[in-house]
Amino acid sequence: MNELRPKNRAYQGYYKRDVPREDERLTHTGPGTPMGELMRRYWQPVCLAAQLKDLPLALLIMGEELVAFRDGAGRVGVLHRHCAHRGASLEFGRIAERGIRCCYHGWHYDIDGTILETPGEPPGSSIKHNACQGAYPAREAHGLVFAYFGPPEAVPEFPDYDTFHLPGVELVPYSIKHGCNWLQVHENLMDPLHAVFLHSRMGAVQLTEAWGEMPVTEWLELGDRVCYVASRRIGDNVWVRFNEVGTPNFGQVGGFWEDGLAETFFQRVGATRWTVPNDDRASTIFGLRHFSGELEAKGIGNKALVGVESLDIYGQTGDRSYDEMQRNTGDWEAEVSQRPIAIHALEHRGTTDRGVVLLRNHLARALKAPPAPVAAQGGIVPTYTSNTVVRVPLKPDTDDRAVLQAIGRQVSDIIVAGNSLAPGERAARIAEQLQGLIGPGAAS
Amino acid sequence: MNELRPKNRAYQGYYKRDVPREDERLTHTGPGTPMGELMRRYWQPVCLAAQLKDLPLALLIMGEELVAFRDGAGRVGVLHRHCAHRGASLEFGRIAERGIRCCYHGWHYDIDGTILETPGEPPGSSIKHNACQGAYPAREAHGLVFAYFGPPEAVPEFPDYDTFHLPGVELVPYSIKHGCNWLQVHENLMDPLHAVFLHSRMGAVQLTEAWGEMPVTEWLELGDRVCYVASRRIGDNVWVRFNEVGTPNFGQVGGFWEDGLAETFFQRVGATRWTVPNDDRASTIFGLRHFSGELEAKGIGNKALVGVESLDIYGQTGDRSYDEMQRNTGDWEAEVSQRPIAIHALEHRGTTDRGVVLLRNHLARALKAPPAPVAAQGGIVPTYTSNTVVRVPLKPDTDDRAVLQAIGRQVSDIIVAGNSLAPGERAARIAEQLQGLIGPGAAS
Amino acid sequence: MNELRPKNRAYQGYYKRDVPREDERLTHTGPGTPMGELMRRYWQPVCLAAQLKDLPLALLIMGEELVAFRDGAGRVGVLHRHCAHRGASLEFGRIAERGIRCCYHGWHYDIDGTILETPGEPPGSSIKHNACQGAYPAREAHGLVFAYFGPPEAVPEFPDYDTFHLPGVELVPYSIKHGCNWLQVHENLMDPLHAVFLHSRMGAVQLTEAWGEMPVTEWLELGDRVCYVASRRIGDNVWVRFNEVGTPNFGQVGGFWEDGLAETFFQRVGATRWTVPNDDRASTIFGLRHFSGELEAKGIGNKALVGVESLDIYGQTGDRSYDEMQRNTGDWEAEVSQRPIAIHALEHRGTTDRGVVLLRNHLARALKAPPAPVAAQGGIVPTYTSNTVVRVPLKPDTDDRAVLQAIGRQVSDIIVAGNSLAPGERAARIAEQLQGLIGPGAAS
Repeated sequence: MNELRPKNRAYQGYYKRDVPREDERLTHTGPGTPMGELMRRYWQPVCLAAQLKDLPLALLIMGEELVAFRDGAGRVGVLHRHCAHRGASLEFGRIAERGIRCCYHGWHYDIDGTILETPGEPPGSSIKHNACQGAYPAREAHGLVFAYFGPPEAVPEFPDYDTFHLPGVELVPYSIKHGCNWLQVHENLMDPLHAVFLHSRMGAVQLTEAWGEMPVTEWLELGDRVCYVASRRIGDNVWVRFNEVGTPNFGQVGGFWEDGLAETFFQRVGATRWTVPNDDRASTIFGLRHFSGELEAKGIGNKALVGVESLDIYGQTGDRSYDEMQRNTGDWEAEVSQRPIAIHALEHRGTTDRGVVLLRNHLARALKAPPAPVAAQGGIVPTYTSNTVVRVPLKPDTDDRAVLQAIGRQVSDIIVAGNSLAPGERAARIAEQLQGLIGPGAAS
Repeated sequence: MNELRPKNRAYQGYYKRDVPREDERLTHTGPGTPMGELMRRYWQPVCLAAQLKDLPLALLIMGEELVAFRDGAGRVGVLHRHCAHRGASLEFGRIAERGIRCCYHGWHYDIDGTILETPGEPPGSSIKHNACQGAYPAREAHGLVFAYFGPPEAVPEFPDYDTFHLPGVELVPYSIKHGCNWLQVHENLMDPLHAVFLHSRMGAVQLTEAWGEMPVTEWLELGDRVCYVASRRIGDNVWVRFNEVGTPNFGQVGGFWEDGLAETFFQRVGATRWTVPNDDRASTIFGLRHFSGELEAKGIGNKALVGVESLDIYGQTGDRSYDEMQRNTGDWEAEVSQRPIAIHALEHRGTTDRGVVLLRNHLARALKAPPAPVAAQGGIVPTYTSNTVVRVPLKPDTDDRAVLQAIGRQVSDIIVAGNSLAPGERAARIAEQLQGLIGPGAAS
Repeated sequence: MNELRPKNRAYQGYYKRDVPREDERLTHTGPGTPMGELMRRYWQPVCLAAQLKDLPLALLIMGEELVAFRDGAGRVGVLHRHCAHRGASLEFGRIAERGIRCCYHGWHYDIDGTILETPGEPPGSSIKHNACQGAYPAREAHGLVFAYFGPPEAVPEFPDYDTFHLPGVELVPYSIKHGCNWLQVHENLMDPLHAVFLHSRMGAVQLTEAWGEMPVTEWLELGDRVCYVASRRIGDNVWVRFNEVGTPNFGQVGGFWEDGLAETFFQRVGATRWTVPNDDRASTIFGLRHFSGELEAKGIGNKALVGVESLDIYGQTGDRSYDEMQRNTGDWEAEVSQRPIAIHALEHRGTTDRGVVLLRNHLARALKAPPAPVAAQGGIVPTYTSNTVVRVPLKPDTDDRAVLQAIGRQVSDIIVAGNSLAPGERAARIAEQLQGLIGPGAAS
């Protein structure tokens, strides 16, 4: 029945079965690896603040075994998991008013890893001055706990993004484990085309119908950001979606429920997230879901579903049945099923993968010299991610793809140019300019 | 109590504890290995046809990750599991009227791996002409799906064995996973002596009492077949069982319920099977149970028990309790418990293991030059496997072992000589000759 | 909030994250390793006698796959697990009146591994004279099964410790698996300080209040024993606890429920135990709990809880909930959580770890030349482990730590000097001398 065809490209399994090694440089993040060292120059989320209650929490981050806890004074510690004394795990330690004590012999550590007491040792013992527990600077922000894993003499600023300060927006933290390398999870953010297929055309509409429209897409590299601008025709409107990722594993996603039916200008993000390696074959998205009356006007989102291993967006977790994953495939399995570590050498990338290529190249360059971050204004770092919908009816005898491209460029130019505005007025000024966009030359 | 004895061979554990490496040449079957390449020159079953319904099926065969499916037109595809585009698993793909689409970006593959569409790419994209998905020729036969994993320019004939064409015989497919290397499962077929012990004398009678009689056994190597002829004294009768395996992992087993009490001539097989490596430490028997009024006259077999991970023969599956496996041990655990890969260098083989040795030597030679298959007659390949029971009463003052041996040789000579007969008459002619066997010189 | 402090020892995680290799010499015990060979010169427990009933028992000891069984004559066999014929596991064998038969082809082995029959082979076969099954001498003692894994020409005496012969003492066998290397389990016995913290001060009182008192501790190396003598002030009394381990993995523990409130002299052990490697990352404590009216006067111990994976002492097993392990941490998780194999190079050992250091040095020396065992008296090997409580009220203006040290030394001197006494009178004479200890010079 299935005869061999004479075509060159039929039944080539035998000649294509070899599986080369992964791109270690971009995917491996253990201590001492190039990407691992890059990631260690940035604050990384490690758990939700709400997970730190009366017991220590065992963590695995970039191959390092850790324990996190909040001490009696409310301060957060992130320490190496194994006690510097004899190696018992501090996940079995006793949280103290200040720091934590090991269960085994009571060695008492402050949250910075300095030894407060070695109670079994004689009073004059100098051990506590000559030893310490490995520790990392930690801080809480927006319901997440962040730690800094790099050289202690080079702690970076904690980036305070503009989207953390929007009036009326509530940030709800979440985390979702993925049984695969961090990069294939992260780069999904620079792949707007998958939304057309995975989230719409391949089966159930997972977000809104509008996502199934094929966009005209542009990709931008702007300092420490890699971005896409995807412009879609929705009836008489054009929906311009601007998404960004930041070196090395930061990203934002525009509002999820946009349907393109009503005009909107510089509507901000649905989620801010970091994709953090647990080890080379597992990673966790730590994120902040943004809720506001404007973003959730359609009543689809559900704050109660956002938390540890849970999100109110379809297909983001690995706890659905295999049958459901096969019938209505989500991001989680599309990413995880690329193998424990996706093999770039086996890919056939097209024009639609330009964002992924741009991101990988950006990261490869960052290994040599991390890009300068977008400059903060008044201490607040501007970001771009947003949805904009403008009324631009379809014109007969016009190349509408060119129209979409031109509008996308105008929208993104306005947004990017807003970087230098003062934080207090930037969003409003950008929206204002976007509203004024539709003039004679709008679609030229 | 347990004193050390002065004997040389007592308590030698300390000197016998080293575990050498397995025989890689015969046991390893990944891409590029000698045995793997040999197996890839033959059609191999990969699943049951009934498993291909509305969803793709993930498979692992000889270390290769695959997906099998039946498209809307009813054609079967066996493709590399990871999409050629960006590696998402096609087990999450959408089966189309023609071929399958990847869930992630909708790339559309025909069953031969050629790309029908890359819908996210611009109309003029040439990707689909320059890339393809790894695919293997596949076909359905008798309720099993077979694929060919070798060089596409050398697809072999699909062997059409005589036992697929017997009137009144229904072939019922099954598959059973084994947590061990393929060879120790396969070579059990060339080990008739284990039936005396494992299936009879060591505990419960798993088949019939007759199996517990010690046979006189001969081993034959005939072209691409390795065979045994086991002759047993059952009262006034002699039961001659002829079993065969074929290069590299094909085999047939005579009827299971023979009790030797009634004459029968060239009664054909109880099961046809292939032992297919999943990887080097796991394998699956894919088989066809043969049912007919004659074979199942005793009413023991049960068609309803034959399928995926199920067979109507005791001890063939791994889902029994450990206690039951210990008390009434079956083939499954006798094979799997030889270690994940049995260590030939630790064996002490005797005369009863000649079939196993012959098979291994046959396979080792086949690695250098595959043997010519037994020639098809009218497109149909003759096979030997059968039970024959002839009346030859025990004679006083005669070496009955010599009688058994002589009868076994006569029976097998007649059956093998039947190779050149036309398919339509071969079985009847062989039976006729066997019936005429019992003459003055029968046991001389 | 958590600013980097200017101190040298704060936030040093980045500089302390490397995990060196384990100390292979002391921790690895597979065939041919230095420690493995040392352990193979001593009788090792492998299971409870009660586990050998009507079915064989599969075991893993020092990386060797084994099977243990009791034959129909009541004799115990410890054989290599895989049949010398074709490798099927003897855990699926049939126990015979004499020895065991393999399920697959019925090869029949005596408990010493000699082949009694190869029933499928012809009568004249010489296989049974030229082959054998790997076997180890085995014996039962006190409800445990012991085997000797060393060269068969050098079987050592089975040590008959004095504590096996105490009147009124019942020995109840138990075994507890640990998911970590043997050494970190074993050396807990030479670490009396952990009892102050883990068992008392860090949370619930797991034994008695008295354990929470900080002892004055001395460490002794005496032939094949490494010991500690821990002396505690309990009101007007001094409690001297003497514990010992023996080369390489033997140990004893004094009575568990001592509260120091009543005088007692040379009260013997609560448990005798051996920490046996399963492989390098798992080990099993095989032990004998001692029960007597004297030892269990408080009614805390519970014989019914002692057995396979069960003990009547808190925190000794791994089957408690993670929450309970975090809140009331026991020895099991304190030991197992030191990593699968504790990394000595990362430890910061203090004066309180002198016992652990002494033990490791003792073992390292034993690898070169095993120490001479303490000489048996009348066939019985003296041991030291015991609790002694003497009335020595606290004196004003006295350095009580010096008093405790002096008393500890006097007690241990008396006990050690008792080595040469005849077994029948030793315990009474030692107790007598200890009772006479409190004189004018007692605490000088």
